[in-house]
Amino acid sequence: MAKLKEFSVAPDPDDQRLVERITGTDHDKNAVTVSVTVERALTLYLNSREIVTMMTIGDYPEYLAVGYLVNQNMLSPEDKITGIDYEEDIETVVVRTEFESDFEEKLAKKTLTSGCAMGTVFGDLMEKFDEINLPDAARINTSDLFTLLKKINTAPSLYLEAGAIHGCVLAEGDKPLIYMEDVGRHNAVDKIAGYMRLESIDGADKIFYTTGRLTSEMVIKTVQMGIPILVSRSGFTAWGVNLARQACLTLIGRARGQRFLALAGEHRIVFDAQTDGEADGSANPARMNSKKA
Amino acid sequence: MAKLKEFSVAPDPDDQRLVERITGTDHDKNAVTVSVTVERALTLYLNSREIVTMMTIGDYPEYLAVGYLVNQNMLSPEDKITGIDYEEDIETVVVRTEFESDFEEKLAKKTLTSGCAMGTVFGDLMEKFDEINLPDAARINTSDLFTLLKKINTAPSLYLEAGAIHGCVLAEGDKPLIYMEDVGRHNAVDKIAGYMRLESIDGADKIFYTTGRLTSEMVIKTVQMGIPILVSRSGFTAWGVNLARQACLTLIGRARGQRFLALAGEHRIVFDAQTDGEADGSANPARMNSKKA
Repeated sequence: MAKLKEFSVAPDPDDQRLVERITGTDHDKNAVTVSVTVERALTLYLNSREIVTMMTIGDYPEYLAVGYLVNQNMLSPEDKITGIDYEEDIETVVVRTEFESDFEEKLAKKTLTSGCAMGTVFGDLMEKFDEINLPDAARINTSDLFTLLKKINTAPSLYLEAGAIHGCVLAEGDKPLIYMEDVGRHNAVDKIAGYMRLESIDGADKIFYTTGRLTSEMVIKTVQMGIPILVSRSGFTAWGVNLARQACLTLIGRARGQRFLALAGEHRIVFDAQTDGEADGSANPARMNSKKA
Repeated sequence: MAKLKEFSVAPDPDDQRLVERITGTDHDKNAVTVSVTVERALTLYLNSREIVTMMTIGDYPEYLAVGYLVNQNMLSPEDKITGIDYEEDIETVVVRTEFESDFEEKLAKKTLTSGCAMGTVFGDLMEKFDEINLPDAARINTSDLFTLLKKINTAPSLYLEAGAIHGCVLAEGDKPLIYMEDVGRHNAVDKIAGYMRLESIDGADKIFYTTGRLTSEMVIKTVQMGIPILVSRSGFTAWGVNLARQACLTLIGRARGQRFLALAGEHRIVFDAQTDGEADGSANPARMNSKKA
């Protein structure tokens, strides 16, 4: 199994394919030029079958393709990938497997249950959810967490360059290992899942960080990746919390600076950091209506 | 055609079905209680056919159902809706039409092109996009826009109460008319589209506001709703800008306080407001790398 270095994969805001300079008008009618993130269509085939067309920044089409198939349960751990062909000019990526998988049945199901509004194939995801046991011995030190957040937030990124983008990070202790960004949060997650599958990375000793909200879907995908700790700068939904508690996933939200709020799996958190003492219970007190219990 | 009053529909943060109080642990190991948004499954049927299961806060299932079908081109303006049956206990909503629509073919197409990662049925949406001509005479005064932003941001909402939610507003001049929130941005848009269809609201003299990013999908839906002006507090993607220019949609992003950036259809903007004079060309200068042209 590969051992990853810090920022083995990191955003490249200087990649001219990923941002476009556009001229517009500001509130005082001044002409201004800004950087905006590029979106591209990418049509995914599994063997000879067209699966989906995704909108992506297009930096890691192979990881995105494999991660999408893994996260949709269209590619099982047993399925052997024999090739991935990305054709930039026709915006397609083909994932080839040794044998045809049983995804045909899954695809039929997808038509019926696909929560497009939330971007997930819920029925499929839930199938595996109950079978997974996350490692209980994993730990996260708050001192490491605060260092990790600082490293992520100060790393050069498309977010800092152009905004309007989501980021996800696979981390270990205070080290960001794989940092992926994309216009769709789901794509960023899928690119990391694809990386983990293709590079044989185990999730058991890892932390997953996302800029997006802690929804049910995000919780399910993290559990599926076998990662015991999920961290976000954003907030929670009730079902996300309920599922995290059910799966014994450590769920940390509103993580900014030296603040956070954990709503599930708190036993994995080691509170070893001295914080600034403002223990008001809210990582974003101006916005969130939170009170001490 | 109905004439709408200010906040004819507005969020109800006191609705106990929409938020849940949850106890967790903060960064200093204090027990805290917070409000989190509830997500519920809602399975949509068009006549006898199951279409999709959506995750929603569940406040306006009928509008969401119809808006989803309209925005996915599964319900044409000619299709006559004969009934909408919402069954809360089994989390289903059934939309009935006089005749079976031709959505069967659309549904087959959906399987192939559904950009679940972006939550849209792209092929379908683009079909209608080129046929639509937005009214060129519509105008937005910057003084009205700034008043509108203030009204939206200070209105009681689930966002202020619990966070982790997207909001969309149908507005006219400086008046917010319909303000919908949901866990998925697409749901909030669809609820407004459903309201417009069922209450016979015309989009030609309206403004559409969203908290979400100005992606291609958001632009396409706004154009489909016949609304000539789209405003967001968030940023742009390149394809969103390109499509807006193609459709002559007025595209205003990073709209906060008295600042914004317009990247398409600037001819509809009347710059009548005195701003605070900080004409640095960026509505979020700390984050965005924007320069004067």
